[in-house]
Amino acid sequence: MSDLMISSIVVKVPTNIAVIKYWGKKCEKEMVAMNDSISLTINGLYAETKVSFGGNCDVVFINGKKYDVKEGSRYQKVFAEARKLIESYNKKGNNEGVINFLGTKFCIESTTNFPVAAGLASSAAGFGAIAYGIGKFFNFSIDDITYLARIGSGSATRSVLPGLVIWKGNDKGECKTLFPENYWPNLRAIIVIVESTEKEISSSNGMKKTVETSELYKYRIMNCVQKHVEELIEGYKERDFQKFGEIVMKDSNQFHAVCLDTTPPLRYMNETSWRLINLANQFNKDKIKVAYTFDAGPNCCYYIEEDNVNNFMILLEKEGFTLNNGKLILSTVGSGPEIINK
Amino acid sequence: MSDLMISSIVVKVPTNIAVIKYWGKKCEKEMVAMNDSISLTINGLYAETKVSFGGNCDVVFINGKKYDVKEGSRYQKVFAEARKLIESYNKKGNNEGVINFLGTKFCIESTTNFPVAAGLASSAAGFGAIAYGIGKFFNFSIDDITYLARIGSGSATRSVLPGLVIWKGNDKGECKTLFPENYWPNLRAIIVIVESTEKEISSSNGMKKTVETSELYKYRIMNCVQKHVEELIEGYKERDFQKFGEIVMKDSNQFHAVCLDTTPPLRYMNETSWRLINLANQFNKDKIKVAYTFDAGPNCCYYIEEDNVNNFMILLEKEGFTLNNGKLILSTVGSGPEIINK
Repeated sequence: MSDLMISSIVVKVPTNIAVIKYWGKKCEKEMVAMNDSISLTINGLYAETKVSFGGNCDVVFINGKKYDVKEGSRYQKVFAEARKLIESYNKKGNNEGVINFLGTKFCIESTTNFPVAAGLASSAAGFGAIAYGIGKFFNFSIDDITYLARIGSGSATRSVLPGLVIWKGNDKGECKTLFPENYWPNLRAIIVIVESTEKEISSSNGMKKTVETSELYKYRIMNCVQKHVEELIEGYKERDFQKFGEIVMKDSNQFHAVCLDTTPPLRYMNETSWRLINLANQFNKDKIKVAYTFDAGPNCCYYIEEDNVNNFMILLEKEGFTLNNGKLILSTVGSGPEIINK
Repeated sequence: MSDLMISSIVVKVPTNIAVIKYWGKKCEKEMVAMNDSISLTINGLYAETKVSFGGNCDVVFINGKKYDVKEGSRYQKVFAEARKLIESYNKKGNNEGVINFLGTKFCIESTTNFPVAAGLASSAAGFGAIAYGIGKFFNFSIDDITYLARIGSGSATRSVLPGLVIWKGNDKGECKTLFPENYWPNLRAIIVIVESTEKEISSSNGMKKTVETSELYKYRIMNCVQKHVEELIEGYKERDFQKFGEIVMKDSNQFHAVCLDTTPPLRYMNETSWRLINLANQFNKDKIKVAYTFDAGPNCCYYIEEDNVNNFMILLEKEGFTLNNGKLILSTVGSGPEIINK
């Protein structure tokens, strides 16, 4: 490969938190989800990633730490798929410059602006950034970029698009923007970082167990999610926070319910998570002004309109969660990825 | 009523903990359950209750404390139903002595051997004892006794029978013994009393909310409970602890899952409850030797065979739960109610 020049691209890709939850795969290899999921990206939490091409071997650095890119790892799966895509673009002849990189190796240098181990969907930002970087460098179609992202981590597929994003739970697994980033401009996210005392069950293993053992999960997939999807889109379309918030909370609760219906039961929310649920219920006494949602971890993501942010933050502060102590992150939503440098 | 002699009966009725959970009513007035439930009585936790007849007004004392027996209370509902039953037995002429007690008032003096507020199904023992006392005094059929018990508290209906007891979720609400008390003689219950920091949602209000708002609940009722019932009976019949234990845990998890799928979500298990779940999973690594179950509260009821009790108690002791500090209760199961004195 000595004839290859080293080239690179730098991208910034935010994490995303689902408002309709993805849980369970139809196909492990192709990362096909059992159900549609919908998310908003959290602009304030992102991976800034430099992807360089043409080195001697694949290397990955995350926040300065070198990761083992061994055979069978998620990184290798993504790199192998990327090489296939590059080759196919090359064959189609619809991408100049591709020829030089055939068989190329990748060097990933990723920095997240939040702790990777905190359970804040870091893999969504991380694999989103890798896919987006490679894809934008080689002029992949957006469908190929979302595909490449999900090979690394299912939910990463939603991070590479702006606005309200849907990832379809069918074989094609299309991922697309339902409403552009500026459609609901005063929507905000408040992330509350919750300390976790217990070891978490990985999402990947957890969902496998749920698919295998939960009776309620089957019903959720067959009869509930699609209704939630439609109602959520309706609420979002009308910028009706009541409707939107109701479904966001319902779907989060139901996702954790099917986790609990798993054998052995999966538990991701802890005592603090429940305090944060109760806080939202308290704030929503008269009408829904804030909506909580929890991924497969104890951290809380609230969606809220700008007008209500200050009043709700006062409540959170009383519970010891502040912007100053780093337990709160306030963010706009939906802007999606950016190319910083090519 | 001055011509009435004061007479009384003393009964002892244990509490019961369901292995298939009852949640939700079809009919509030007649206390008709949405689904079949199955339980074992916990002999070590009971109400000893004296029911006296012929006073001037209805009075209820529980552990020495006088309760307000006002119009519309559960006590008044039970007393009104009891008076109707007495009248109907009288009319049929199939009960001598009944005539004298027409329109009679009841005096209840109940002592539980465990704290009433601890969330240990005290109403099951309490209303079971009132119904059993009145019923045995007036020679009610067992069907009328179970009916009278459930008017006070749904789950009380199962406390007045020995062995493995089923309460049908149909309009008649029959309650009957499936296997007699000595069918599985080495079966034990270990109750762990868990401190509750938060205010509990009453079962009665909680289940109403679940019926109204949970999508998964409908599926549980239509498609899951009946299967659990059949499998549990099969396991019990074969005294197959693996089969029995698996269903006990699955049904408990699923019950709490539908609570979580409620809007707003209901949570009865706390951090300590989950420690106790994990302890069971740890003990069951190779095969199921202990089965946990949780009612609408944080306390844990383990079912276990006598051979495994000591080893499991050692694990519990390490977590700070001992017989000596009163946080553990070890009990035989299924003996049912007794008449102490008539």
